[in-house]
Amino acid sequence: MSASTTSGLPFLKGHGTQNDFVIIPDPDGVLDLGADAVAALCDRRAGIGGDGLLRVVRSAADPAAAALAGQAEWFMDYRNSDGSIAEMCGNGVRVFARYLVDAGLVKPGPLAVATRAGVRQVVVQDDGSVTVDMGRAVLPGPDSIVVTVGDRQWPALNVNMGNPHAVAFVADLAHAGKLYEAPEVSPAGAYPEGVNVEFVVDRGPRHVAMRVHERGSGETRSCGTGACAVAVAAARRDGIDPALTGESATYTVDLPGGRLVITEHPDGRIEMTGPAEIVASGTLAL
Amino acid sequence: MSASTTSGLPFLKGHGTQNDFVIIPDPDGVLDLGADAVAALCDRRAGIGGDGLLRVVRSAADPAAAALAGQAEWFMDYRNSDGSIAEMCGNGVRVFARYLVDAGLVKPGPLAVATRAGVRQVVVQDDGSVTVDMGRAVLPGPDSIVVTVGDRQWPALNVNMGNPHAVAFVADLAHAGKLYEAPEVSPAGAYPEGVNVEFVVDRGPRHVAMRVHERGSGETRSCGTGACAVAVAAARRDGIDPALTGESATYTVDLPGGRLVITEHPDGRIEMTGPAEIVASGTLAL
Repeated sequence: MSASTTSGLPFLKGHGTQNDFVIIPDPDGVLDLGADAVAALCDRRAGIGGDGLLRVVRSAADPAAAALAGQAEWFMDYRNSDGSIAEMCGNGVRVFARYLVDAGLVKPGPLAVATRAGVRQVVVQDDGSVTVDMGRAVLPGPDSIVVTVGDRQWPALNVNMGNPHAVAFVADLAHAGKLYEAPEVSPAGAYPEGVNVEFVVDRGPRHVAMRVHERGSGETRSCGTGACAVAVAAARRDGIDPALTGESATYTVDLPGGRLVITEHPDGRIEMTGPAEIVASGTLAL
Repeated sequence: MSASTTSGLPFLKGHGTQNDFVIIPDPDGVLDLGADAVAALCDRRAGIGGDGLLRVVRSAADPAAAALAGQAEWFMDYRNSDGSIAEMCGNGVRVFARYLVDAGLVKPGPLAVATRAGVRQVVVQDDGSVTVDMGRAVLPGPDSIVVTVGDRQWPALNVNMGNPHAVAFVADLAHAGKLYEAPEVSPAGAYPEGVNVEFVVDRGPRHVAMRVHERGSGETRSCGTGACAVAVAAARRDGIDPALTGESATYTVDLPGGRLVITEHPDGRIEMTGPAEIVASGTLAL
């Protein structure tokens, strides 16, 4: 499908903590949305605009997810705004689940969603928020990581949530500057595939606020895996490790786009709870 | 109307050379769109997203335009993305006219549009492009204006199109850099209310390409008054002044978001012709 043949296609737009998505319902898997069409739809000025696109398709109707159809009825076919394929998006899964409930395709409560990273367990809560299983964090080290912005430097923790993060605790979020460019992270070899950099300040007991520079995207208003990495880094700094204490630890993380609540369980699983909103629905004229 | 009470409201999204707008049809003038609601609708992540909002209302139905109702049936109630009121927007008028024709509210051809800057003459052309009367340019001087980016400097022409421009001819558009910040313009007193800065290269006879840094917005993909200012500056540089020769002069101006064709007539009137597209239509869920 080219960008010029999407005319009449139904779409929705939604966001989770201001990470926003074009939603394309395709329950029977009849659409062939190529990279060009996705990029045209996600273009913020010539298209609808979004950080990514969520195609909503029954798992059984898509070759990429048919093997998961027994575990999860719905497949989140997630695309980056440039049209490339991505495995998972924590904020995207919340919006995906919100759409399914609003459209009457599933009931609120527990829901399994097929993604290219496997089946994710989701709960659509009574208050409208959505909880997503974000997997486990790995802390690969080294201990010598340093983040630099201008003439300021901070030590940082390497947290891998399937993607790489460098988490730095700072005295003031303004010290991160305008973040037009990626902060410098050393040693150079610590992140061969680039890194997302989080700047964190305390707001209260088990309550932090953060800014994030995402590799390839610049500063964004929300990053789900970044919030999880920050919660884990804050817990370790506070001397808390659920694997050792046997008790789950919950941190509230404020991002520029809203608030996420992150719980790390003794088995290492990390759950993220946050809002998801549908902003509009319509049809494409392009 | 607050942002939370726009649910169910019909909207469209459109753009002209990638200057994009939320369009709210309100033919009978029943909506009271406050600044907060406009800002929420124009928010690119939590709303629909747009550089501005066009409310489409019959002139007779709006106190701001009722006096113009005899000259122009339709009033373009233009708002900036922060919700503030603006007088005119050249790219917006093209999209406004495109909407009126697509919705069957007017026929293609000549059309008068009421704006807060008075009635503007518009022509919806057979090829889908739209021509807008952009008024006249004033060249107030001084001759000593200099634009600086990093260690490069260029002389610039002060062109006022109702708003202020500094037009600099450069060897390479890349020399303008990333334009994260406003270029330095001197002397400081030349533009007491700030300035839009255009960087221009030649592409061929009467054909130029430009980048623009808009005051308050940063680099944008298109600026209608900027393209007019650039065409006038290029003509004067080429020794062409329609007021002296009695012949209209036409320049093609390529912007990051598309192509505009600018004609300056012997009486000083400047006409801008360019594309206008409706991208989508829908209803708000917010």
